Amino acid sequence: MNKADLFSQIKAKSSYLCVGLDTDIHRIPEHLKNSEDPLFEFNKQIIDATIDYAVAYKPNIAFYEAHGLKGWESLMKTIDYIPKEAFVIADAKRGDIGNTSKMYARAFFEEMNCDAITVAPYMGEDSVKPFLEFKNKWVILLALTSNAGGKDFQNLKLETGQELYENVLAKSQEWGTEEELMFVVGATKAEALTNIRSIAPNHFLLVPGVGAQGGSLEEVSKYGMNSQCGLLVNSSRGIIYADDSENFGQTAERKAAELQQEMSKYLEKYL
Amino acid sequence: MNKADLFSQIKAKSSYLCVGLDTDIHRIPEHLKNSEDPLFEFNKQIIDATIDYAVAYKPNIAFYEAHGLKGWESLMKTIDYIPKEAFVIADAKRGDIGNTSKMYARAFFEEMNCDAITVAPYMGEDSVKPFLEFKNKWVILLALTSNAGGKDFQNLKLETGQELYENVLAKSQEWGTEEELMFVVGATKAEALTNIRSIAPNHFLLVPGVGAQGGSLEEVSKYGMNSQCGLLVNSSRGIIYADDSENFGQTAERKAAELQQEMSKYLEKYL
Repeated sequence: MNKADLFSQIKAKSSYLCVGLDTDIHRIPEHLKNSEDPLFEFNKQIIDATIDYAVAYKPNIAFYEAHGLKGWESLMKTIDYIPKEAFVIADAKRGDIGNTSKMYARAFFEEMNCDAITVAPYMGEDSVKPFLEFKNKWVILLALTSNAGGKDFQNLKLETGQELYENVLAKSQEWGTEEELMFVVGATKAEALTNIRSIAPNHFLLVPGVGAQGGSLEEVSKYGMNSQCGLLVNSSRGIIYADDSENFGQTAERKAAELQQEMSKYLEKYL
Repeated sequence: MNKADLFSQIKAKSSYLCVGLDTDIHRIPEHLKNSEDPLFEFNKQIIDATIDYAVAYKPNIAFYEAHGLKGWESLMKTIDYIPKEAFVIADAKRGDIGNTSKMYARAFFEEMNCDAITVAPYMGEDSVKPFLEFKNKWVILLALTSNAGGKDFQNLKLETGQELYENVLAKSQEWGTEEELMFVVGATKAEALTNIRSIAPNHFLLVPGVGAQGGSLEEVSKYGMNSQCGLLVNSSRGIIYADDSENFGQTAERKAAELQQEMSKYLEKYL
């Protein structure tokens, strides 16, 4: 999916919501646990319930990989099931030497037909570039993550005065254009977002940490939005685990709809 | 496997060789391509041929993942096949927020029973710690990688005068002991190794880039070895793709034996 198509989707649904499929066998409703493929069954119902309100889905690969072969099967069935209109992000945080990154790129872009993959920057240019060689496929590079440990290295001050994550944002723009590169930015504060937008004004940002993790959607939208929206805001637990009864689908739908309605307001206000 | 057992293995075999199983379907001998599980069949013969000379095996996960379910099956069969005496490293370069890293840890340590996994440091402490909670299992943290892009971020100078990789080496020692943490260090030059040993004198280092990638085994051994050896030196292509005929096993054995004999000499000289 290219940038224009993604923006069209966002306008059509008045939404920049990404639903995180961090599907944990221990947290899905009891009645699903005995189905033939519980992870897929859960995801299927979540996707059905949220597709009108979400433009993207982000399966978190670890949650499937943890179940070995069976988990990979659930993952592939899930990705196949997501309607073509939605943008599919493999949250895999890969990144390795060139020939290895190329293998991962093939796995996620060709075997699984995902639109995007999250990539860790530590190994530099030749670890990221192989992912950029696929037309209409995207690298979403980790820049600033929202976990506590994010600050351990990402906020280290360089001798130039820049912090490490700022250098990642700047340097990686030499490797790929805004048509193939996005950034993970776990920032929900006005100041940080303004700073990030001064370095990467036109790129899409994938923002985790809104919802269960407590960031303010209004701040993110006000300071992060650009003329093509430029935002995908992820919510996982706040939607998929909002209800552990048999009605989890309806509750997920309501939670997704609430976020979409808020987003619709911000699109009118800030776009 | 704990550190003492690893060191015993090293002494017993007079070797600190790790064989990298970067098994690429396009590079294995023709006659294997029609077997039922070519990747596993190749690995099986490589393991049989090298087990007397190697103390560790390092399957590169991407090469299996690229083949989807079938690839994962080849990987698991390979790991099961490696004799228990050898140290098994999942070269996966994972690293994610806490609950996700925990999932990966379970996948590689419990489902697959690997001894170690390579982890990327960018997301900091809480992305690494979940891997450290498994007894006698190891994190091998990327510090200095040998690829060209390694310098993009790893050698950035911080305002303290340290380079980023030096900070990774130092800070991560607050998270785990030398009984559970090793480092990937793609250094083959005396100066860099001496510097690394001044920061991490007692840790095991996993050194790629000797052999096909051209580093000097003598330099690595002279400047990197500590009183418990403290080195695992990886060779992949130089062993597994030394010969693409039906005799690839014998050639792999000879290549591994040559490295082992050289290592045996350095163990006598520098241990």
